Amino acid sequence: MTTEINKKIKQRSKEIRNNIKNSKGIILNNIILNDDFTEIYNRCCENILGYRKVPLGVSHTPIKINNLDFYIPICTFEGALVASMCRGIKLINKCNGVNGYVENLGITRSIAVEFSNFKSAILFYRWLKVKENLEFLKQAGEKGSRFCKIKSIESKNLFGSTVFIKITAYTGDAMGMNMITKAANQIFRSISDIFTDSELITLSANICTDKKWSVENYANGRGKRVFLNIRISEKDLLDVMKVNIDDLLKLYNTKIVLGGSIILGGFNCQASNYVAATFLAFNQDLGHVLESSNCILDMKRVGDTLLEINLLMPSLIVGTVGGGTHLEPACAFFKQFDGLEPLTNDPRDLSTSANYLALVIAAAVLAGEISGMCALTNNTLIDAHMRLNRKQ
Amino acid sequence: MTTEINKKIKQRSKEIRNNIKNSKGIILNNIILNDDFTEIYNRCCENILGYRKVPLGVSHTPIKINNLDFYIPICTFEGALVASMCRGIKLINKCNGVNGYVENLGITRSIAVEFSNFKSAILFYRWLKVKENLEFLKQAGEKGSRFCKIKSIESKNLFGSTVFIKITAYTGDAMGMNMITKAANQIFRSISDIFTDSELITLSANICTDKKWSVENYANGRGKRVFLNIRISEKDLLDVMKVNIDDLLKLYNTKIVLGGSIILGGFNCQASNYVAATFLAFNQDLGHVLESSNCILDMKRVGDTLLEINLLMPSLIVGTVGGGTHLEPACAFFKQFDGLEPLTNDPRDLSTSANYLALVIAAAVLAGEISGMCALTNNTLIDAHMRLNRKQ
Amino acid sequence: MTTEINKKIKQRSKEIRNNIKNSKGIILNNIILNDDFTEIYNRCCENILGYRKVPLGVSHTPIKINNLDFYIPICTFEGALVASMCRGIKLINKCNGVNGYVENLGITRSIAVEFSNFKSAILFYRWLKVKENLEFLKQAGEKGSRFCKIKSIESKNLFGSTVFIKITAYTGDAMGMNMITKAANQIFRSISDIFTDSELITLSANICTDKKWSVENYANGRGKRVFLNIRISEKDLLDVMKVNIDDLLKLYNTKIVLGGSIILGGFNCQASNYVAATFLAFNQDLGHVLESSNCILDMKRVGDTLLEINLLMPSLIVGTVGGGTHLEPACAFFKQFDGLEPLTNDPRDLSTSANYLALVIAAAVLAGEISGMCALTNNTLIDAHMRLNRKQ
Amino acid sequence: MTTEINKKIKQRSKEIRNNIKNSKGIILNNIILNDDFTEIYNRCCENILGYRKVPLGVSHTPIKINNLDFYIPICTFEGALVASMCRGIKLINKCNGVNGYVENLGITRSIAVEFSNFKSAILFYRWLKVKENLEFLKQAGEKGSRFCKIKSIESKNLFGSTVFIKITAYTGDAMGMNMITKAANQIFRSISDIFTDSELITLSANICTDKKWSVENYANGRGKRVFLNIRISEKDLLDVMKVNIDDLLKLYNTKIVLGGSIILGGFNCQASNYVAATFLAFNQDLGHVLESSNCILDMKRVGDTLLEINLLMPSLIVGTVGGGTHLEPACAFFKQFDGLEPLTNDPRDLSTSANYLALVIAAAVLAGEISGMCALTNNTLIDAHMRLNRKQ
Repeated sequence: MTTEINKKIKQRSKEIRNNIKNSKGIILNNIILNDDFTEIYNRCCENILGYRKVPLGVSHTPIKINNLDFYIPICTFEGALVASMCRGIKLINKCNGVNGYVENLGITRSIAVEFSNFKSAILFYRWLKVKENLEFLKQAGEKGSRFCKIKSIESKNLFGSTVFIKITAYTGDAMGMNMITKAANQIFRSISDIFTDSELITLSANICTDKKWSVENYANGRGKRVFLNIRISEKDLLDVMKVNIDDLLKLYNTKIVLGGSIILGGFNCQASNYVAATFLAFNQDLGHVLESSNCILDMKRVGDTLLEINLLMPSLIVGTVGGGTHLEPACAFFKQFDGLEPLTNDPRDLSTSANYLALVIAAAVLAGEISGMCALTNNTLIDAHMRLNRKQ
Repeated sequence: MTTEINKKIKQRSKEIRNNIKNSKGIILNNIILNDDFTEIYNRCCENILGYRKVPLGVSHTPIKINNLDFYIPICTFEGALVASMCRGIKLINKCNGVNGYVENLGITRSIAVEFSNFKSAILFYRWLKVKENLEFLKQAGEKGSRFCKIKSIESKNLFGSTVFIKITAYTGDAMGMNMITKAANQIFRSISDIFTDSELITLSANICTDKKWSVENYANGRGKRVFLNIRISEKDLLDVMKVNIDDLLKLYNTKIVLGGSIILGGFNCQASNYVAATFLAFNQDLGHVLESSNCILDMKRVGDTLLEINLLMPSLIVGTVGGGTHLEPACAFFKQFDGLEPLTNDPRDLSTSANYLALVIAAAVLAGEISGMCALTNNTLIDAHMRLNRKQ
Repeated sequence: MTTEINKKIKQRSKEIRNNIKNSKGIILNNIILNDDFTEIYNRCCENILGYRKVPLGVSHTPIKINNLDFYIPICTFEGALVASMCRGIKLINKCNGVNGYVENLGITRSIAVEFSNFKSAILFYRWLKVKENLEFLKQAGEKGSRFCKIKSIESKNLFGSTVFIKITAYTGDAMGMNMITKAANQIFRSISDIFTDSELITLSANICTDKKWSVENYANGRGKRVFLNIRISEKDLLDVMKVNIDDLLKLYNTKIVLGGSIILGGFNCQASNYVAATFLAFNQDLGHVLESSNCILDMKRVGDTLLEINLLMPSLIVGTVGGGTHLEPACAFFKQFDGLEPLTNDPRDLSTSANYLALVIAAAVLAGEISGMCALTNNTLIDAHMRLNRKQ
Repeated sequence: MTTEINKKIKQRSKEIRNNIKNSKGIILNNIILNDDFTEIYNRCCENILGYRKVPLGVSHTPIKINNLDFYIPICTFEGALVASMCRGIKLINKCNGVNGYVENLGITRSIAVEFSNFKSAILFYRWLKVKENLEFLKQAGEKGSRFCKIKSIESKNLFGSTVFIKITAYTGDAMGMNMITKAANQIFRSISDIFTDSELITLSANICTDKKWSVENYANGRGKRVFLNIRISEKDLLDVMKVNIDDLLKLYNTKIVLGGSIILGGFNCQASNYVAATFLAFNQDLGHVLESSNCILDMKRVGDTLLEINLLMPSLIVGTVGGGTHLEPACAFFKQFDGLEPLTNDPRDLSTSANYLALVIAAAVLAGEISGMCALTNNTLIDAHMRLNRKQ
């Protein structure tokens, strides 16, 4: 069977590349075809031309979080990204590492349901706020998977006969969009058993919000909410970054506080760089880079000689099961999370490794923030980019 | 020399992987090391572990835009993404293709400059609005590269003695962040020649905005602004998508219009999926997925039997020169743009292939939007994901 | 006593006006001083110069909502505002009135509390999510007033040792900011009894959000959330507005849907006009016009000859008790709500007239939206403004 | 004639009040009818019931701005508002007043124009970016009034055959919405002379943005952009406010910086309170409170003993001519601006008093911010509200 699939893909790739060559005169090189495709066939990609290669870098020393050690892989074409993170990790580790906490908010899906008229819609809207009814719907939603635990089903919006419903669920270590979509379908069926005039308009009503920037995710979070905290002595800051606290805080106040206020967003330096690069290295869904990059950086002086840095990432969408997470070498890095103590104490939340993955990605972001901010402070950013980011 | 670098990387990779194995008990497989790394060494990545593989799919038939044909490569781990795009392309081509226009807004960089006090800052702020002064600064900014053409230097914000300045420039076919950063540095030097009390606080003041979500990019655009337009007959829609116009518009009105209004954003179905997947296939900077995914979808009935679809993407950040764009097979796909007529008629805008790249990425988004919206309309989305997105 | 206060105010006013006259040469006319000030003295204003006059208009016929009749007072200097609303009411009443529902979300206040370090803060953050602890805090918050019923106490944000807490409460018919501020103070005291290392940084931490535009209020609502719905026959629309459904929907799609998507907000025509004008007439707090004007307008064709219009106002901040609501003639209009059936069935929500007030204000907005949109459709807006808004 | 109008209004008011009394049993008291209505009749209000009274307070000492003195009138029902502003003014004046600058951005109006198809729309879109064409349209727009000076006509958005156009103009001392609406009409006519397939969809396309919250106004400003700056010694701060710099900055960092980042907005304490209260006292359009309240507060320590406070208000919509600005006593306060030096040096900008009005309103906001923040810092806010804001 394996040979069949691989043969088929080779044959198909050849045909398409021939078409491209014949019609466009373009020869595609550097595509890997002598390989096994069974793990991605009909699962991760279609019309497969082969594998393409992406540079994989890594933090050469592990980063210390809550007194645990983690290696962070990075995939990127942008020079200086890995080096900058490693510089941040060096400082973080020198200060005994970063402290962090992950709150698993659960994944969300929203549906829109139409009733026969406004009054029926209002009736349902009020029905949905009764505890017993919610329990009934939650049970319906949990039938499909033992990992799926519905946290909440709520409505804040109604237009005429149409009610928007947002469903939130724990989904074990899976990112969980497929799991919750099925649960949403089940929940609607249970609604329609009772409200026989109801019709499903859409299983995805945009207020989830999945893969879009939205005030909903910004205000309420989605997936994993991560808090990080570290205190850095001025001496260590000077040693590693050649920057003092005053200069760094002046930059912080100008760029992040005022700059961020002006543009209403981006209260960070370059979070999306590290979200994207670690997402690719960990085989996460790159469509989620958008909302996962929400990030607020807080810097302040504490006492005479300490700098405190806090980071809040409210909507990291990650999983260690499902999607492309079974593929090597990404999945090997998840083994770092084996046997670790759960971060939650909610017995319904069966996620452990996915929560740690969120913690590690946030820590990579933090390392990048510290290093990037310091490079901007002493204006070495251009030099670093010229040195590590250009044709030699 | 080549052998030296490759040997060095192999050696280093071995060391790091040994460390990981020894400390964590983790063996990393499926990393390519017997390869050439000279093209990425000291340019695209550091602490290189090797290459990792990513599935590369492609539209098996080219998409028709402005009567031209383009193949669209896709890198993804998410099943159904390529198949769905191809379905969209099938319908688009059946309707004689999509019409599009790209406006090259230029890349932006912002700096923050401090003066000795508020009055000096105001003096400069007003000086900056005088035409001759702007010309003087523009010339300073253009010294570094013949491709760099400063479009505007403006300030909208001032706090006490600190003035925020936003610089916009054409940068040929390069994405241009390095080019404009150097130009910004030059512009500041010219400012400081005249305003001797001025000091540079930061070469990146967040109001650019680079790699963050912001109202600035949303309102004013950045990089390439792309407009697409297509009209589809109900017959073709039914043939390819098994959906009629009324049902599709009902979904559109609920999900995109109302859903989008509720969450203030995301007036599209899944733009970021295709932005991320094409960015990876074309070796674009994945940190830019965030702002590049801004996208407004417009659908309406025209006359009795036609559906009109329009797409606006105001801030696509792309380039065909620089970064990782020299690597195969990504760069081979850029050859599709060779010899095409420039989309601009501004003689200072030396970009052609980058503009076409933006057009093609937006068209991939459009194909994905049409197909995704239709799948939601007849509720086949779950089935497709179950079929193409799961362990067999 | 009354005479004392009035005499004192007259005296003080005279002094200030003399100062103004002497230093600026300005004589202030048209200020009412021969009046009673006891009801506003030390309660509604300080440094009182007197009363100034504002034009008070009214809908000459009551508007029909849920088969009940309400007169709507308006205070404004903008010609055409009252006339336009009355035109909208005429059409609404012709269609048997508007249907509406008010959900009392409660008023909100947020506080920021500092703990001795990050770990203590996390400890508290997790403590706050335990049901029993919440009950304990709720009881503490409800001690001050029998109308104050705490709905929720929650935290979504934490930076280092600082935790942000948002409190939501029913406050009877009062707008409730004073009531909930006192409750917040009590809640903090109970926190500090248990967490002895906790300190109150601020009783108002901006995430409430009070009198600022914010994603928090936009996404989650505040005060009263109002839903309105009406169906209008094309014949009635033509009769009253001289506009057909197609033309109106074309305007709606362009101005509200696309225009709103472009600017990320304002999915309405002129809601703030009527919010401000009715707030002034009903003696509401004009500082709340900002958030109360959040409003999404939805228009669509239903069947062949009907237009459906829906309105969502998620954050109307109103009260009929407290503040300036005791003053005539505003308070007289509240008598319209006497004896009406409560809109809620939550026994803890003791608000009735304030909910009806929200309903009436939203209906005024709706009347203004319909009339304004129709005037734009047949381009009579300029004419109306020229006729009713200019020096004769 | 005067008598006729007044008689008519009295008669009409009596009728309406009788209807209300008969149908609702409500008697409206405290409405002024024995007065002159000619100045507001057919100009500021319709269906006039009479005048209602609003408390008018004033800063008992003028505030010092740029070494000039201005009295600030306030209309409000919220106790403590005037007192708190006066406390802020006391501190400001003790520090030799505030420095400020006003940039008149001009008022904006947007229109949507439809062409026969996408290609025609693109043709026009590109035509609109040619300098000569813009000059031609500007001249058309300026025909109606010698005060109307078109600053820019630009398009950033196009959907299919529909182009959105934003027009910006100086309008003398008028707020200018009527003036620019007429100009927009003229500009469209000139467009349609050349593009004979063009049709006007709407004279108000929401992207202006008028009376709605929008990223457009937030990012680009509208009306007057005001910058304020003041430095306060710790001694003066302690004397007047009983607060030290460290405590105030801690509150600022928590409430404004972090709180503001969390809710994406409201980087101030209570700007809308003073915008609304001064707007009412100066007879400005209360519908503009929404966008005029955009405000970013910046506080930082300078050297050892100074606190620097900066305020940016990017979109104050004000005028001293037109609307209700001719009515006393509001108009009397404008006389403070007579004979002052223009704040602009653009000869086309004929506004002086309106710019000063913006300056004064922003200064009132600043005074309120300082006082409010200090009250929160030493937690006296509740006390003040209990003392000045409640039934005695």
